Amino acid sequence: MKLFRFGPLGKERPGVIIAQARLDVSRFGEDYNERFFESDGLARLEKWLGANLENCPVVPPDARLGSCISRPSKIICVGLNYVRHAHETNAPIPKEPILFFKSTTALCGPYDNVVIPKRSFKTDWEVELAVVIGKVARHVEERRALDFVAGYALHNDYSERAFQLERGGQWVKGKSADTFAPLGPLLVTADEIEDPNNLSLWLTVNNERLQDSTTSDMIFPVPVLISYISQFMTLLPGDVISTGTPSGVGLGLKPPRFVRPGDVIELGIDRLGTQRQIAVSYEEQPA
Amino acid sequence: MKLFRFGPLGKERPGVIIAQARLDVSRFGEDYNERFFESDGLARLEKWLGANLENCPVVPPDARLGSCISRPSKIICVGLNYVRHAHETNAPIPKEPILFFKSTTALCGPYDNVVIPKRSFKTDWEVELAVVIGKVARHVEERRALDFVAGYALHNDYSERAFQLERGGQWVKGKSADTFAPLGPLLVTADEIEDPNNLSLWLTVNNERLQDSTTSDMIFPVPVLISYISQFMTLLPGDVISTGTPSGVGLGLKPPRFVRPGDVIELGIDRLGTQRQIAVSYEEQPA
Repeated sequence: MKLFRFGPLGKERPGVIIAQARLDVSRFGEDYNERFFESDGLARLEKWLGANLENCPVVPPDARLGSCISRPSKIICVGLNYVRHAHETNAPIPKEPILFFKSTTALCGPYDNVVIPKRSFKTDWEVELAVVIGKVARHVEERRALDFVAGYALHNDYSERAFQLERGGQWVKGKSADTFAPLGPLLVTADEIEDPNNLSLWLTVNNERLQDSTTSDMIFPVPVLISYISQFMTLLPGDVISTGTPSGVGLGLKPPRFVRPGDVIELGIDRLGTQRQIAVSYEEQPA
Repeated sequence: MKLFRFGPLGKERPGVIIAQARLDVSRFGEDYNERFFESDGLARLEKWLGANLENCPVVPPDARLGSCISRPSKIICVGLNYVRHAHETNAPIPKEPILFFKSTTALCGPYDNVVIPKRSFKTDWEVELAVVIGKVARHVEERRALDFVAGYALHNDYSERAFQLERGGQWVKGKSADTFAPLGPLLVTADEIEDPNNLSLWLTVNNERLQDSTTSDMIFPVPVLISYISQFMTLLPGDVISTGTPSGVGLGLKPPRFVRPGDVIELGIDRLGTQRQIAVSYEEQPA
């Protein structure tokens, strides 16, 4: 299945794509959140659709799209998970996955404006494959790890490099501003993605292609990440793991280049859709 | 007011202490969560108590106590916020607050066992003052920062030092195991704590006093922390800020000393109550 959410920020309603039509499944009565995933919501929704498909309204073409899932308990990000990205940031190749969190208040829709924070001059882009967890995971073995995945989504892990690297330690500080986590447009369920480590991903700024890679280049592939993270903390249904970005971020360019108001950032991953953000300054965002 | 929660893990019910009696306020019909705080729940609860106090049952003396608030959107921790603690860990005095997150799945009750994780040999204690946010906070000024506080609680920020410091970067990895965030017993509302930076705090292991300080020794006091953090991310009602630990952690002892099965860890902060945890190994915890 391909799930999405639509409507105003914070009041999104659930939708499903069937035969290229965007259907409103509000009448199913649930949001795509922890409770949905932990109670086998994907199977229940599929069953419900079998009986109710004909009565689902089509979503208006101009509807805003939100994050493809509701706010999770956590967004866990993986740092430096592509070799050339580690090189471009002058970091060593990690021996174990580097983990950091992103505030869940950063979540937004795939076509929302990205707001450059107050006093920020180093807002940067990072196209990433996000994994959405389907059931409680603790000490999961690698060979069983993909059984714990509900689906996959496109994520732009926006990062303020000065906040992240020049303000006294721990990356979360540069990862958590509002609008820094556009997620979606689609949650594509795991059964539709045979191999999450065989997807191409790309990002352009003002039509210039700056990131262009494949998830097969990850240092630590998806099953390793799930197994590894689940040794250190409990993963809950709906939790997001963002699996790291390939080379081509602004910090790695010579000279470095960061997001400026008016920039248009577009990105995509095979079969997961595309995103498009226009950058605005904190001062010029609508109230 | 003094709030607490009681009952089995994950099914806690709300309570209030009035005249030293622990009253069950389940009939108020709400948990102490984001929605409660954002909808002026403290004032509504106080009003409800005015009309219903006489009908509230007393909580059985043997009831388990849970975390004093329901799972928040995030737990933000402050690193190295006491001078002598920075010294004992051989870290420089920070120029700005160091921030990291703790997985909210680490939350537990103040008297629950602390579970030493699988393959852990360096589980450590950290008595801390936790601040619970009362309303949405963005770019808050220091002089208004305490207006955004719902209340205060005692927190033991358990930390696995090898996971935190020897496993490839970013502290969240050593802060997020289940049972690593006992919070409570009480949420004491802000009106009852005139100055959060004038409270003594202490911790013992097997009756030996190892931490003994006062929150007046913080490098960055509570209003500075709230203002600072709110520059980087949106704080939601119910969010927890844990304000750092004073000297006396196991990592700083000579030789270092870490939690072993059977150890009894006790801690307290003036007017916020005390906690007591018995350490158990991952393998011996009850299913």
